[in-house]
Amino acid sequence: MGEPSVGRQLPVAVDAMGGDKAPAEIVAGARQAALDLGIPVMLVGRPDELGDTSGMEVVAASEVITMDDDPGQGVRRKKDSSLVRAAEAVRDGRALAMVSAGNTGATMASALLRMGRIRGITRPAIATPIPRPGSAPALLLDAGANAECTPGMLVQFAQMGAAYATVLHGTPAPTVGLLSIGEEKSKGTPLVKETHALLAGIPGMNFVGNVEGRDVLPATVDVVVTDGFTGNVVLKTLEGALRFFMDALGSVLDTDESTRTAAAVLLPHLEPLAAAFDPENTGGAMLLGVDGVCVISHGSSSARAIASAVQVAHDVAVAGLVGLLKQAVSQPVE
Amino acid sequence: MGEPSVGRQLPVAVDAMGGDKAPAEIVAGARQAALDLGIPVMLVGRPDELGDTSGMEVVAASEVITMDDDPGQGVRRKKDSSLVRAAEAVRDGRALAMVSAGNTGATMASALLRMGRIRGITRPAIATPIPRPGSAPALLLDAGANAECTPGMLVQFAQMGAAYATVLHGTPAPTVGLLSIGEEKSKGTPLVKETHALLAGIPGMNFVGNVEGRDVLPATVDVVVTDGFTGNVVLKTLEGALRFFMDALGSVLDTDESTRTAAAVLLPHLEPLAAAFDPENTGGAMLLGVDGVCVISHGSSSARAIASAVQVAHDVAVAGLVGLLKQAVSQPVE
Repeated sequence: MGEPSVGRQLPVAVDAMGGDKAPAEIVAGARQAALDLGIPVMLVGRPDELGDTSGMEVVAASEVITMDDDPGQGVRRKKDSSLVRAAEAVRDGRALAMVSAGNTGATMASALLRMGRIRGITRPAIATPIPRPGSAPALLLDAGANAECTPGMLVQFAQMGAAYATVLHGTPAPTVGLLSIGEEKSKGTPLVKETHALLAGIPGMNFVGNVEGRDVLPATVDVVVTDGFTGNVVLKTLEGALRFFMDALGSVLDTDESTRTAAAVLLPHLEPLAAAFDPENTGGAMLLGVDGVCVISHGSSSARAIASAVQVAHDVAVAGLVGLLKQAVSQPVE
Repeated sequence: MGEPSVGRQLPVAVDAMGGDKAPAEIVAGARQAALDLGIPVMLVGRPDELGDTSGMEVVAASEVITMDDDPGQGVRRKKDSSLVRAAEAVRDGRALAMVSAGNTGATMASALLRMGRIRGITRPAIATPIPRPGSAPALLLDAGANAECTPGMLVQFAQMGAAYATVLHGTPAPTVGLLSIGEEKSKGTPLVKETHALLAGIPGMNFVGNVEGRDVLPATVDVVVTDGFTGNVVLKTLEGALRFFMDALGSVLDTDESTRTAAAVLLPHLEPLAAAFDPENTGGAMLLGVDGVCVISHGSSSARAIASAVQVAHDVAVAGLVGLLKQAVSQPVE
């Protein structure tokens, strides 16, 4: 996306108080983005808890929405929270985009209530990258914003996911698959069957039909569309299985002197794979459908993860993501 | 379960014509079960295609339901198929149980139409083992028999899954978890929320509440209950991810001379893990809720997988699985 010229660009608002390692790691990540990547950053939070903020804009917010807060109530009651203030900065045109590693539900609620929905969008969805070592990640959506969905919502998720893949990865006509339990269009729930029929009729969409669980990793399509219940279960299943295998492999490599010697030989070759699946590198999930750019980072985000998230937020904002989403869903669905 | 005394026991009916490697590998697996495990076997299929069947009973069936056949139509039209005849052998008390690696839908339909449902069961479900290296596998059900479910069906799946875990693994009070997108009972779809409320009220059930995708592998409960759409997607996601990681690891180990030397050191330590996740060793999935024992093996089953399946079918049949399922669901649900 080229080198941003600091001073002429709006900053990315970072919720400094959200995440397991907030504020220290969040501030450190924001600093990495500002200094190493040259992306202007706006830190939102309690100024006296942020430590050294030199070189970054600070917007004071006296409250914090915690992981235990109910998302809707938190946003309504804590009007001076870092999350709400970050969303307002985007709404008011003072920030290009927002990033938070805090309460996911509250991040969605803040973005939705302050930025509003894109006209015509029924519900926003969370798009999560699925790593594909050696090429651009695939996207899975909805990853958990909406436990219950209608066919019309899934069609919009497909449209938004395809637009996002185009912006993020430069894929001109991303392939879109609908997650089901068989490739035939007769397979699945009524929701899936109705959605299949609708997607097949959308001009310009590169819809390849149903895909199955085994098409998620390795992903056989650029965009995997599903309801937020299935999507969330699938992603957490992958997350758990990945950790399980990494731990099991780690134990094998650490068995004794001979395996540790073997491990030293293998580690340089294993690193690219581990890096591809390190959530620190993916920059987080994107809330699609709100009238602004909102990146939802993992709660455990370190400085590096936050810097990646700021980079993604910046890149898709300057590439005009929201405008492309508006175009994408202005096409007739039926 | 002790050594069966051949001659006093009914055989396990094996669909010799079902599976990617049928009939050769199926017959070879049946022979392993008969000779090595001492379990009497009844081969069902076209006698002149089965090769050497010495030491095994053969029941002639002139037709084959293929992978391309519609399950319901296949069973209705091909009345002399190996699948239908195997199910009839169980129904008529000539076989203890049936095993097939053929068309899964047709296997379910044959069992359902010929054996019938257990009284009170709304719909049978497929219970699939999830390996837990070092201990008994967990069970996930429904793995795909019913894309759409009601709360009452999920409660029966929980009851049947718990009874099966008890029979198969000797777990006296298996822990049962309901797959959702958050641990709180307020999380998930209306189906999940209603099921949660029902399960919490069932006396004697060791219901631990909602579990998430990351609780599937490694499994944190003995029985994971979900609808057949989610269950099928989750299992196929795991299957795909497992193959992906094994392939990626294999590539790393085979990079050059030095990694191949390191691999030789590690392989003995990796083998137990690989064996635990080798579908050949798990014996296949179980159709629970029909009035008889029916094991559904993977289409790619080799001789060893079939022998494992015959072993499991035999063991749970002689342990009285169907009787225990009948008891389990005779408890009041609401």
